[in-house]
Amino acid sequence: MSIFTALDVQDVRFPTSRDLDGSDAMNTDPDYSAAYLTVRTDTPDEGTALVFTIGRGNDVQSAAIAALAPHLVGRDVEEVLADLGGMYRELTHDSQLRWLGPDKGVMTMAIGAVVNALWDLRARREGRPLWLTLASLGPEELLDLVDLRYLEDALTREEALEILRRGAEGKEERIAALREHGVPAYTTTPGWLGYSDEKLTRLLGEARDEGFEMVKLKVGADPADDERRMRIAREVMGPGFPIAIDANQRWGTAEAIEAIRALAPYEPYWVEEPTSPDDILAHAAIRQGVSPVRVATGEQGASRVLFKQLLQAGSIDVLQADATRVAGINENLAILLLAAKFDIPVCPHAGGVGLCEMVQHVAFLDAVAVGGEDQRRRIEFVDHLHEHFEVPVRIENGAYMPPEEVGGGARMHAASVQDHLFPDGPVWAEGAEGVASASSDLSDPSAAGTPGAAPVAPSAAVAP
Amino acid sequence: MSIFTALDVQDVRFPTSRDLDGSDAMNTDPDYSAAYLTVRTDTPDEGTALVFTIGRGNDVQSAAIAALAPHLVGRDVEEVLADLGGMYRELTHDSQLRWLGPDKGVMTMAIGAVVNALWDLRARREGRPLWLTLASLGPEELLDLVDLRYLEDALTREEALEILRRGAEGKEERIAALREHGVPAYTTTPGWLGYSDEKLTRLLGEARDEGFEMVKLKVGADPADDERRMRIAREVMGPGFPIAIDANQRWGTAEAIEAIRALAPYEPYWVEEPTSPDDILAHAAIRQGVSPVRVATGEQGASRVLFKQLLQAGSIDVLQADATRVAGINENLAILLLAAKFDIPVCPHAGGVGLCEMVQHVAFLDAVAVGGEDQRRRIEFVDHLHEHFEVPVRIENGAYMPPEEVGGGARMHAASVQDHLFPDGPVWAEGAEGVASASSDLSDPSAAGTPGAAPVAPSAAVAP
Repeated sequence: MSIFTALDVQDVRFPTSRDLDGSDAMNTDPDYSAAYLTVRTDTPDEGTALVFTIGRGNDVQSAAIAALAPHLVGRDVEEVLADLGGMYRELTHDSQLRWLGPDKGVMTMAIGAVVNALWDLRARREGRPLWLTLASLGPEELLDLVDLRYLEDALTREEALEILRRGAEGKEERIAALREHGVPAYTTTPGWLGYSDEKLTRLLGEARDEGFEMVKLKVGADPADDERRMRIAREVMGPGFPIAIDANQRWGTAEAIEAIRALAPYEPYWVEEPTSPDDILAHAAIRQGVSPVRVATGEQGASRVLFKQLLQAGSIDVLQADATRVAGINENLAILLLAAKFDIPVCPHAGGVGLCEMVQHVAFLDAVAVGGEDQRRRIEFVDHLHEHFEVPVRIENGAYMPPEEVGGGARMHAASVQDHLFPDGPVWAEGAEGVASASSDLSDPSAAGTPGAAPVAPSAAVAP
Repeated sequence: MSIFTALDVQDVRFPTSRDLDGSDAMNTDPDYSAAYLTVRTDTPDEGTALVFTIGRGNDVQSAAIAALAPHLVGRDVEEVLADLGGMYRELTHDSQLRWLGPDKGVMTMAIGAVVNALWDLRARREGRPLWLTLASLGPEELLDLVDLRYLEDALTREEALEILRRGAEGKEERIAALREHGVPAYTTTPGWLGYSDEKLTRLLGEARDEGFEMVKLKVGADPADDERRMRIAREVMGPGFPIAIDANQRWGTAEAIEAIRALAPYEPYWVEEPTSPDDILAHAAIRQGVSPVRVATGEQGASRVLFKQLLQAGSIDVLQADATRVAGINENLAILLLAAKFDIPVCPHAGGVGLCEMVQHVAFLDAVAVGGEDQRRRIEFVDHLHEHFEVPVRIENGAYMPPEEVGGGARMHAASVQDHLFPDGPVWAEGAEGVASASSDLSDPSAAGTPGAAPVAPSAAVAP
C-alpha cells in the first residue's frame, strides 16, 4: 500500500510585466505566476498541477493549496485515485473551508489544484495523457465525477447521462480524428494593448502565415485606440477573417453596448468579457444589444453555478472554460455537460503560464466524449512560456494536436521552477523591487484617487 | 505626520464545535474564528477589524489580509483616512490581486478587513462610534465612498445621490429615535440543529420573555426533524409570532420549493438561504414557488454585483448584509443604496464572533441616513462570545441599542485574543487534535464517499 506524504507548493513567478506581455484593459502589469503544486507519495509517483495568477497574491494562493494537506496526507493512494469524484466532493464540501467561498475564489482554485494534481498522478500511473484517461471512462464513470447539486433545475441526472451516452457512441472514430487534425486554435499573441501598431501588424501577419484561422485583440482602455487597432487588424487580415475582441471586464452594460457597436463596422467575431464576470443579467442585456456580435465569457467564471445561470439566461454565445479557475477537471466536466445541454460551444481560455498545456485536455475530452464534433470549438493560444514545460503544447496548422505523453500537462522543468521562485530565485533576486513599486502606479486607471503604494516588495506582504 | 507601520494579523479560534453551538445543515461543526487585524501606526493610534470564518482556513484568510500590507505601510495616515473611498478602490482594483477574485472570496474579505480597520481608526480619532462617524457625512461624501462600476444599469449616480439626499433630511430626528428605541433584533439562539427539543423549547420561551419579536430556526438536514421543530416552535410562540427558517444553502430549486411548502402550515416568516448564495435565478424561481413565504439571502453574498442582480431579478424579499463578507463598509454602503432603490429591507446577518458588534453599525447607518425608517428592518442576534469584545452589543427589549463608545466594534480584549490563538493558545494546546480529527467525519452528509481526513491539526496545513 502506498500513501500520500505531502503537498509541496512553490511560488513561481515570471516577470512578464517588464515587457508588457499580457497587458490588457484591467490587467495592466501582470507577472504571470503559478502556485505550483506537487502531490508527493511514499513512492517516486507524484502528481503536479498549478493555479495561474498574475503576480501579487500568488503567495496567498499557495497557502490555500497547502491548507488542503490534511485531506490527503496519510491517505491510501489507490483508494483516493479510484474515487476522484468522492475526493472532489470531500474537498468542496469541507464543512469549515466551504465558508471561504463557497464555490469561488482562492479556496476553490486551491481545490482545483489538488484535484488536477490527482488526475495528473492517475494518468501517469496509467501511462496515458490525461485527455485519454478521461476519454476512456464510461458514461456512468464520468457522471460519478460530477456534483449535480444546484444544477438539476437546468440539467437532470438523466439528461447528463444521456449526453454522455451519446458521447460514447463513435468515440474511437473521434479519437482518431483528433489525433489526425487536433482542435483548432486561435491566437491572442498579436493583440496585447502594450504592443505598438507596427508590432501588431507584424504579429497579425505571422499568425495568418502560421495557419491560425482566428485572432483576438484586447480592447477597452481607449476607444480611439480600439478603433484604430481594429481597423488595422481588419485591413491586415482581410474581410471575413474572424477577429475577436476582449475587453477584460472593463465596461458597464451601457458602455459595453456603445463601445461594441462603435467597433461593429469591423465585424468582431465575438466580444469577450464585456463586463463583470459575475454579472449574468448584464451579459444577457449586452448580448441583446450587440447582436449579431457574439458574447463570450468564462475565464473568471467562478463555478458551475455561475455557468449554469449564464446558459439559463441566454447570456453567452461562447463559453470559455479555464483550467485553473474552478474546482478542477471534475467541475469542468460539469460545465462541459451544461454547455452541451444548451448547445453552446466551449472555447477554453488559455495563455498565462501553463494554461494551454492544461486546458487542452478539457477541450479534447469535450471533443471526444461530451460535446462531440463542433465546428465552433476553438482553444485560445498565446505563445508565452511554453519552453518551461516538460510537455509543451504542439500547434500544427493552427490546431492543438493532442499529446501522447503521460500526464495533465502542468509539470515544469525543475530548472524553470528554481530560476523563477519568488522572491529569492535568480530572476527575482535583482528585479523584485522595481516590479513591486510599479504595482499600483499601474493599477486600474479608472479607479479615481489611487496614489501609488509604498515600494515594498510583495513578498513583504506575506509575513503576518 | 504619522504613517502606517504594520498590518498585524492573528489567527483566533473558538472551539464552538465542542458544544454544537452554531450547527446547521451545511456547517455541521463550526469553530467560530476570526482573522483578527490590527492596523498599526507610528503613534498609539491603531485600527481593528476581523474576518469571521468557521475554523479551517482562518490561516489562509489571515495570509490574504497580510498580503495587503504594501498598500498601507509607509503611507500617510491623515491622507489615507481622508479618502477611504480612494483606498477602497485602490485595494479592489489592485491590478494583480484582482485576479484572485474579482469581487469575491478570500481576497475580497481581506480587503474588507483592511477597509473596516481604517474606518475603526478614523472613528476612534474622531472620538465617535463608527455609525455616527458615517451618519455625519453628507450625501456627496457618502457617495464618494462607493464604486458604481457595474451598478449603473440598476442604480445611476443621480439616483444614488437622490437617495442620500432624502436620507439627509430629518437625520437628527432619526438619530434621536435610534438612541431611544434602537433597531429591532431577532434571535437565532434557540434554533441550532444540534439542540434537543427540550433545549429548543426552553430557549424559545426565554427569547419571548426577553422581548424578542422574531426568532429563527435552522432547517434542511432532515424533513421530519424540521416539521417537528417548527411545530414545537409554533406551539411555544403562538399563532402570528414571526418564526423564520434558515436552510443554509442545503437545497436545489425543486427540493427547496417542496421542503418550504411542507412547512408552510406553520407559517414561516421567511426562508433564508434556500439554495446556493450565487444562484440568482434559482432564488427567483423559489420565491415564485413559495409565496407568500418571503425569501432571504445575503450572508454569503460575495459582492455588490451579486446583490444588484438579486434585486433586479426579484429574487429576494429580504437582503441580509454581512459585516465581513464583502469589501468592507464602502461596499456595504453600495448594497444599502441598491436595497433602498428597490425598496427591499436590509436585515443584517450576525452571530458568529464579532458580527453583531460590527454589523450593527451598517444597520444604524441605514436607519439614519440611507433607507431611513423601515418597520421591516431587523438585525440578527445570537448570544455567543460577546464577552470577548471591548464594546459588546447592548440588547434592550429585543432591540440593538447604538453604542456611544468609539470605534467599529471589532476590538477584543487582549486576553481573549491570547487565550484563543490557534494553534498554540491555551484553549487549543490540549484540544486541537480532537477538533481537527472530527473535521471531515462531520463534513456535509450529502457528500457521497467522503472518508475522514487524517487527524492532522489544521495548522499543519498552513506551512507550504
